[in-house]
Amino acid sequence: MRAEPRDKLVADTAAALKALRSNRPRVHCLTNTVAMAYTANMLLAVGAVPSMTIAVDEVPDFVTKADALLVNLGTFDAGRRRAMELAVEVATERQTPWVLDPVFVDRSPVRTAFAAALAARAPDAIRANTAELGAIAGRDVDENALSHLALERLTTIALTGETDLVTDGARLITVSNGHPLMACVTAVGCAESAVLAALLAVEEDPLVAAAAALLTIGVAGEVAAAHARGPGTFAPALIDAVYAMDEATLARRAQVT
Amino acid sequence: MRAEPRDKLVADTAAALKALRSNRPRVHCLTNTVAMAYTANMLLAVGAVPSMTIAVDEVPDFVTKADALLVNLGTFDAGRRRAMELAVEVATERQTPWVLDPVFVDRSPVRTAFAAALAARAPDAIRANTAELGAIAGRDVDENALSHLALERLTTIALTGETDLVTDGARLITVSNGHPLMACVTAVGCAESAVLAALLAVEEDPLVAAAAALLTIGVAGEVAAAHARGPGTFAPALIDAVYAMDEATLARRAQVT
Amino acid sequence: MRAEPRDKLVADTAAALKALRSNRPRVHCLTNTVAMAYTANMLLAVGAVPSMTIAVDEVPDFVTKADALLVNLGTFDAGRRRAMELAVEVATERQTPWVLDPVFVDRSPVRTAFAAALAARAPDAIRANTAELGAIAGRDVDENALSHLALERLTTIALTGETDLVTDGARLITVSNGHPLMACVTAVGCAESAVLAALLAVEEDPLVAAAAALLTIGVAGEVAAAHARGPGTFAPALIDAVYAMDEATLARRAQVT
Repeated sequence: MRAEPRDKLVADTAAALKALRSNRPRVHCLTNTVAMAYTANMLLAVGAVPSMTIAVDEVPDFVTKADALLVNLGTFDAGRRRAMELAVEVATERQTPWVLDPVFVDRSPVRTAFAAALAARAPDAIRANTAELGAIAGRDVDENALSHLALERLTTIALTGETDLVTDGARLITVSNGHPLMACVTAVGCAESAVLAALLAVEEDPLVAAAAALLTIGVAGEVAAAHARGPGTFAPALIDAVYAMDEATLARRAQVT
Repeated sequence: MRAEPRDKLVADTAAALKALRSNRPRVHCLTNTVAMAYTANMLLAVGAVPSMTIAVDEVPDFVTKADALLVNLGTFDAGRRRAMELAVEVATERQTPWVLDPVFVDRSPVRTAFAAALAARAPDAIRANTAELGAIAGRDVDENALSHLALERLTTIALTGETDLVTDGARLITVSNGHPLMACVTAVGCAESAVLAALLAVEEDPLVAAAAALLTIGVAGEVAAAHARGPGTFAPALIDAVYAMDEATLARRAQVT
Repeated sequence: MRAEPRDKLVADTAAALKALRSNRPRVHCLTNTVAMAYTANMLLAVGAVPSMTIAVDEVPDFVTKADALLVNLGTFDAGRRRAMELAVEVATERQTPWVLDPVFVDRSPVRTAFAAALAARAPDAIRANTAELGAIAGRDVDENALSHLALERLTTIALTGETDLVTDGARLITVSNGHPLMACVTAVGCAESAVLAALLAVEEDPLVAAAAALLTIGVAGEVAAAHARGPGTFAPALIDAVYAMDEATLARRAQVT
């Protein structure tokens, strides 16, 4: 029964996408300015309802009414930092699931310290690349260290790269779908984290939600590449592919172990 | 002569679009971060010249030189609120037409109160959905209440939904064009409000300008859907359709009473 | 040998684009909110790695690690002004090449004064239209005055219009490529300045880097127009065309003297 993890993830992902489209959860995003429009459009495409305000006065009201929260560190100033702290407080109190995307935390010390503090507040999932995860952990993180880190932080970690790894410390899923053009479009990773946040609103198991997000975007990337002439037309094609994603397409393409 | 309102609006809309393309009015937009780029591109497509600065130091100079003003509450902080107040002051003093788009005012009390105060300062038009309009009015607004509200506020109200309603209290126009994909792309409504602001710079009757904006975007949505594979490719296709909009297309598709 | 300047620029541009794609320089952009996403995508398409934070705390770290800097005045507030000053200080100290794009400086006095002060700090290149350049210089700038201004400011000036002019005071290159749809999409000029900044990271002669940027975007505009149905689909097509730009396409289309 070695096909089991793959088949199970395909079925779970299809069910979660269906739940998203019928429940239409609200996802509040504290994300970087560059990624805002693309992220909002990706959330709409997957069936969720985005809100994006970063005004300190309003963030508690918006997070209170949200079904999931994304905290992305891509743009970063004092006001936004305060908004992030307030948002995480509200999410924690209300047990609203939240995702941390520590974009560029390896680039500046103030960002590293802030991300490490947020990572310690038990996000339901962290999505990062190797450099970003190493910066948060304060050490290099290989595949073995990954499980320990997830256990230690009581979180699910989605480590993106050529092959994506998802672990909650006890279980490990790898997803090898995707296309090189995904690295040529800004905000694709940020939008993937937002989809992960949306999936946490309809799928109780963060490991499944995280793997479902990576599978959905990875497979959509492959579909989109067939309709694109380059990275410019790939960006809208990726949104089209997420909007149209179904179980048959997932089943045909999923590369999961 | 029951075809009259429809034929008249088609002719008036075509004339206004032509005037936009030859006069190229400047439209200053105080709008949310998510919507900025799409709104600027929509204004360029319709023939207007956008400016978008929200810096308090500069807003009075920019509004002084503008032919119309859009105030959209989608992103909201202390600086932006002050910029909005200054902009409305300049517009009122110079009799520059302005549009209020009270995005998300039903989501947070601070936003509701601010929007209600702006609505009381006699914008030339308000564009809102039922929930947003109800929040401003402090009560539910049905079709009958709509005319009273417009009279009371001395403004034109464009209430968007399945069927759009436009009234100045004395007259009522309904526009039933559009496509479901319009609800799957962020900033389409914001861009529609910007087009309404642009039309106010070339069409003296706010009722006609508002109905023309809704008709243009609604018909463009139908045209765009035929060139789109999903919401990703629909977004640029909508801009193409607005850029190419002409009287023949309006006449063929307009659903107006 | 009258073909020489054209053939030389085509070869130099092709070599610089090749260097960009293999070196992948980091370009830090202090640019306006409207242009951020399009600029980031254009930099990725040309082979560079964008970063866009405007947070005062972080700008020095990001500029320190960057290979080139873009300062664009399109959105403008106290925080952003301070970030720009810090960025230019770091770039000057580290001899990191930087580009000034004085967007809209003719629209408000506070912007004019600030731009003139930045222009006096010896950017490697300034990219502007006639109105913007006149505002900075405090006088009208025709083709003759252009060389004097470049000499006086010890910089390379790229003056964009129907025909683009590039001069360092001693040499003058004209580039006549482009397409009218480029003026119908927001941020195309801003993205062109970012490409110029990227090219400064791999091409030592600022005159060549500036002319190469204008040639690349101009030729890409012509290619993109053939794949576009209007300004909406032109925007992603332009990114595709930059991504795919090669020596053969440049050689076939370049209009350079």
